[in-house]
Amino acid sequence: MAVNSPLPIAANLKPVTGIELGHAEAGVRKAHRKDVLVMTLAPTATVAGVFTTNRFCAAPVQVCKAHLEGLHISGAPIRALVINTGNANAGTGETGLASANAVCSALADLLGCEASQVLPFSTGVILEPLPVDRVTAGLPQALTNLKADNWYNAAETIMTTDTQPKAASATVVINGETITLTGISKGAGMIKPNMATMLGFLATDAGVAQNVLEHMVKQAADQSFNCITIDGDTSTNDSFMLIATGTASLQVTDIASPDYAVLAEAVTTISRQLAQMIVRDGEGATKFITITVEDGVSVEECRKIAYSIGHSPLVKTAFFASDPNLGRILAAIGYAGVDDLDVSKLDLYLDDVLVARNGGRNPAYQEQDGQRVMKQSEITVRVKLGRGTACATIWTCDLSHDYVTINADYRS
Amino acid sequence: MAVNSPLPIAANLKPVTGIELGHAEAGVRKAHRKDVLVMTLAPTATVAGVFTTNRFCAAPVQVCKAHLEGLHISGAPIRALVINTGNANAGTGETGLASANAVCSALADLLGCEASQVLPFSTGVILEPLPVDRVTAGLPQALTNLKADNWYNAAETIMTTDTQPKAASATVVINGETITLTGISKGAGMIKPNMATMLGFLATDAGVAQNVLEHMVKQAADQSFNCITIDGDTSTNDSFMLIATGTASLQVTDIASPDYAVLAEAVTTISRQLAQMIVRDGEGATKFITITVEDGVSVEECRKIAYSIGHSPLVKTAFFASDPNLGRILAAIGYAGVDDLDVSKLDLYLDDVLVARNGGRNPAYQEQDGQRVMKQSEITVRVKLGRGTACATIWTCDLSHDYVTINADYRS
Repeated sequence: MAVNSPLPIAANLKPVTGIELGHAEAGVRKAHRKDVLVMTLAPTATVAGVFTTNRFCAAPVQVCKAHLEGLHISGAPIRALVINTGNANAGTGETGLASANAVCSALADLLGCEASQVLPFSTGVILEPLPVDRVTAGLPQALTNLKADNWYNAAETIMTTDTQPKAASATVVINGETITLTGISKGAGMIKPNMATMLGFLATDAGVAQNVLEHMVKQAADQSFNCITIDGDTSTNDSFMLIATGTASLQVTDIASPDYAVLAEAVTTISRQLAQMIVRDGEGATKFITITVEDGVSVEECRKIAYSIGHSPLVKTAFFASDPNLGRILAAIGYAGVDDLDVSKLDLYLDDVLVARNGGRNPAYQEQDGQRVMKQSEITVRVKLGRGTACATIWTCDLSHDYVTINADYRS
Repeated sequence: MAVNSPLPIAANLKPVTGIELGHAEAGVRKAHRKDVLVMTLAPTATVAGVFTTNRFCAAPVQVCKAHLEGLHISGAPIRALVINTGNANAGTGETGLASANAVCSALADLLGCEASQVLPFSTGVILEPLPVDRVTAGLPQALTNLKADNWYNAAETIMTTDTQPKAASATVVINGETITLTGISKGAGMIKPNMATMLGFLATDAGVAQNVLEHMVKQAADQSFNCITIDGDTSTNDSFMLIATGTASLQVTDIASPDYAVLAEAVTTISRQLAQMIVRDGEGATKFITITVEDGVSVEECRKIAYSIGHSPLVKTAFFASDPNLGRILAAIGYAGVDDLDVSKLDLYLDDVLVARNGGRNPAYQEQDGQRVMKQSEITVRVKLGRGTACATIWTCDLSHDYVTINADYRS
């Protein structure tokens, strides 16, 4: 059960013209569940993505990167994305690369395009061979149910340990034209994205030039998926893709244009919703925690401290227990690696409660005030460093018995 | 229950001449438990220590450092150590410093020495005021039961969430003289020492010059306490103290001497035993995991990768479940931050089982082989990076339901 479930999925996920989605039950790992998704794109579409920085990045991630780089040479547009769950095709060496390429070729043959015009994605268990035959056998079924109004099924298809599908949709008016944005994401564990998160796909019918789209996806990821953590485990398969189908009249070709600013803001807002849904559905999560670090010398040091708090098992179990054992937060700040931090200038708030002042317990702080906030399902930790003007915010969840249960049983 | 409990505590902990230990039930946090320990030292003793690098280092740690630095100026030897459990006196600002000094003064008055000749230590809850009156009221009781043969009681006195006392004792013959070493340690959670761990005390009757002792304690810590992690949480109070009473004839005054080498080796061996006991008694631990990373370019990168594996909640829950979901180890290696790591040269062993070869699944690897090792209570993970000659080893434990239970209930 996600925090404050059900997650706020838009009742009507708006189709994005220029994109159709179809799914199959291919039995990749388990029978009778949707596990292969195909997205086909209009020839006008541009695609850009950001990927995991894990050195063991999965075979499909490597193939994606190669195909996206190839774009700049061939100019032949990406025509389809193919995603399987149940197997991550990571830690699979040369065989894994051949498998990812085989899936692309099979879909390209069915669609009448080149394999390099297909982007592959996988999510699931690491270190096991991808059952290529099962994935490719599912492709014709996925193509038979291709349709534009299919985002909810798509969100369900890419789930693994997720308890709920994650999707968001919005419209924004630019130059008098209504532009649509719809996206889906998945992920509940092995979540500490570093450049992107474990499968997010966001599409708009606006036209966006390739180099502009590449800038926009990085900007959005840095303010959304790159600000969440569940367990500090950066996945091997993290990918966040932004697709601009170009079927609308709006064409964004300049990063400095007002149109870019409006569209990028809308993209970032939806990305943040998708990213926060992942945290709310974090494995075993019962609390949604916002951690804001202010008055730092640099954004980097603020993020370092925020992640140190967000990754501390002791802090996370205290949240689970609704126990205002808040010295654990100070300890996590102290070992964050900001070596010249003067703790005597530091203030700590829990929502509106001033817990620590000038590095020590606030004399006016009372346990029942901390207790009141800790019992909430949504909590903000606010740290003021008193040494600069930079700030950073991340979102995370607590560490519960269910996290252990889920991850002790994941493969069984 | 510790891994493979009971821990191998020497049946006869050998007294170290020149040191007496006494304890009290001072009711610092809970009634009817030993919670204050006093160790008195012969005037010939030298003392050196290493302390947490946490920026929120506790008040007693700050006082300890000041008193040890004062040694070089005053030349007046340290005469006693005083340790309380139940309260860490950390995150307590100026008040905390005054409290730590007040405890030193009270003990100094009873012993007839200066406050600067007393070293204070605290462990327990962070961000709560130290009940100075209760600690000082316990001191006379501790002094009445001072005796040399009291190490087991001392080990029990410094316990917090530890399920078992931790102590080790050995003798080593140097220049025909039998030298005794006895030490105690505590800690089960908030354990990822960085320069030292949450309270370790090791004494020998050898004489060791102050500057030589300072070198020896760092060397021993780096190969013992600085190689363990339970939850990645570096404590605010970590302290490891080495005491040389100088009551034996042996006097070590030169780091380059053969005597130094023999004594330092014995000190390191005991330190490692004390450190490993902490891991075996890690909060909720059911497995003792040794992680060795070999063939790296530097010790630093080997340690980085070892800790990345050792801190991954996904790896730790897989160990708890005895589930050979070993792709999680590859993922943790991949995000360790070694940016130029070529995973195609990497091999992964679980005990004697070659799981991954050249970055991919070993074709000969069979699940039942991994399963067999995962069921053991002691497991070695061995990573060969194939890019150099450096290596590093750390020790850690699994992440179980009991870790969550213990830390959700710690203060209640």
